[in-house]
Amino acid sequence: MAELITIDDPDDPRLSDYANLTDVELRRRREPAEGLFIAEGEKVVRRAVQTGYETRSMMLSPKWVDAMRDVIDALPAPVYVVSFELAEQVTGYHVHRGALAAMRRKSLPDAAGILATARRVAVLETVNDHTNVGAVFRSAAALGMDAVLLSPDCADPLYRRSVKVSMGAVFNVPYARLADWPHDLEEVRAAGFTLVALTPAADAVPITEAAPQRLPRVALLLGTEGAGLSARALRAADQRVRIPMSNGVDSLNVGAAAAVAFYAVATAPAAG
Amino acid sequence: MAELITIDDPDDPRLSDYANLTDVELRRRREPAEGLFIAEGEKVVRRAVQTGYETRSMMLSPKWVDAMRDVIDALPAPVYVVSFELAEQVTGYHVHRGALAAMRRKSLPDAAGILATARRVAVLETVNDHTNVGAVFRSAAALGMDAVLLSPDCADPLYRRSVKVSMGAVFNVPYARLADWPHDLEEVRAAGFTLVALTPAADAVPITEAAPQRLPRVALLLGTEGAGLSARALRAADQRVRIPMSNGVDSLNVGAAAAVAFYAVATAPAAG
Ligand SMILES: C[S@@+](CC[C@H](N)C(=O)[O-])C[C@H]1O[C@@H](n2cnc3c(N)ncnc32)[C@H](O)[C@@H]1O
Ligand SMILES: C[S@@+](CC[C@H](N)C(=O)[O-])C[C@H]1O[C@@H](n2cnc3c(N)ncnc32)[C@H](O)[C@@H]1O
Repeated sequence: MAELITIDDPDDPRLSDYANLTDVELRRRREPAEGLFIAEGEKVVRRAVQTGYETRSMMLSPKWVDAMRDVIDALPAPVYVVSFELAEQVTGYHVHRGALAAMRRKSLPDAAGILATARRVAVLETVNDHTNVGAVFRSAAALGMDAVLLSPDCADPLYRRSVKVSMGAVFNVPYARLADWPHDLEEVRAAGFTLVALTPAADAVPITEAAPQRLPRVALLLGTEGAGLSARALRAADQRVRIPMSNGVDSLNVGAAAAVAFYAVATAPAAG
Repeated sequence: MAELITIDDPDDPRLSDYANLTDVELRRRREPAEGLFIAEGEKVVRRAVQTGYETRSMMLSPKWVDAMRDVIDALPAPVYVVSFELAEQVTGYHVHRGALAAMRRKSLPDAAGILATARRVAVLETVNDHTNVGAVFRSAAALGMDAVLLSPDCADPLYRRSVKVSMGAVFNVPYARLADWPHDLEEVRAAGFTLVALTPAADAVPITEAAPQRLPRVALLLGTEGAGLSARALRAADQRVRIPMSNGVDSLNVGAAAAVAFYAVATAPAAG
């Protein structure tokens, strides 16, 4: 059972995992380097614990102690009880979700391990926005994708905002980083996957025609807001596929395009 | 041609349209009351002007004057040139997109006018998050929805964040507010629409079976994060339809569910 420790000094070193959570640049460097990530809010904290992440500590305002009692009782880690004001002083923001946990990262699986068993994977190139990464994971979990592969410059799925937007799906969907981009796409192909690049380009094949749901193993490549997939990634793909759009619209948001593509690849359509 | 006016006093009343942009509660009340909304960033400002919204004024940092020269030249409204620091003092944030415009709202069409010609409409209930509203509009525009109807308590599509997330799609997709909820759904049905409620409930009909793309006129009802569609809205619907999900996942984000449903209703699937 966890020890409940009341802290009232914002500079107490035991709270350092929670310091300056609003400094995105700092946290982005610090968290992976220290093997740490932050789970926020009752639901997400519970899911992190349930999916087997180890807790370094929790930081709660007093009124959350009861709601989290069962988690606390089973936790082999310290629980720091702090006032609302102290939480704000330490983190830099108004923590209205009440419960924060500092969790230990697990080592990531390598792509080869994932590719050995998966049939449907999403591959993200340069998706450097935490909200978009989180949204893609949430849809990937809901719509039956087996895994996500990330180019080296994608945003961290375990960053606090990604975790929150994903509703904890980042804990359930296996993911790996490809080290050598786009060269490592060859590894994906060698594992038996057809590489399908999602692009709004007018000369790409409409997704209903391409019918990616018929392919035994599919990797869906998705690009970033603004630039989209790079020319190199498009060249590396076996097919270029588009979701038909109305006249005059540039593109779907990557989260929306991912949801449609994941749905299409999961769904054997009834005859129209 | 617009007058270029340099301002260096943050309290200059000519800048009052831009004051305290980070105070969501204040702006939420003030903007509709004053018939005002804020467009942010070159792309969005251009789109607002192109789609026929009247400009009250623009506020630019000096380096944006050249980029926006053609817009400025055609503008019958004052353009305030302010330093980066002044823009931050007035608005309350670091305006890194450089260009802001205060635009005049148009009067909204009534639902009856929209329903007379539309074939596919999205109906949002209590979607009170600006990001989700913006995301739904972006996908609605891209995937060929004719209009969006909003329950009285949905977030404002012309709020700065909705506009930005929609990439300006809120200017192109006609929308109206239903005054009497859910009673006014009868008006939608009377106009010949089948009311299809999107819900993750396990006993709803899978969307490929329901095949909403075969219906001549469809209204897709979507609910909010957390509660989802209300019992009253679900009762008012003709069908309850679900997007099949993997075991153990609660739901898709409303933006992702909207993208899938808009795609499904627009698409006559090729035979599987
Ligand atoms: C905002 S879009 C990028 C737009 C960029 N201008 C381009 O041309 O790709 C982000 C990503 O979403 C996916 N996407 C967006 N709209 C799409 C569509 N209509 N069909 C297929 N993929 C799409 C693509 O993977 C794209 O790289
Ligand atoms: C986050 S969900 C709400 C979840 C809520 N717990 C419920 O049971 O409806 C927001 C909205 O997205 C739509 N939605 C989400 N997942 C869906 C699915 N699998 N099938 C159909 N609609 C879905 C619904 O309209 C829902 O009201």
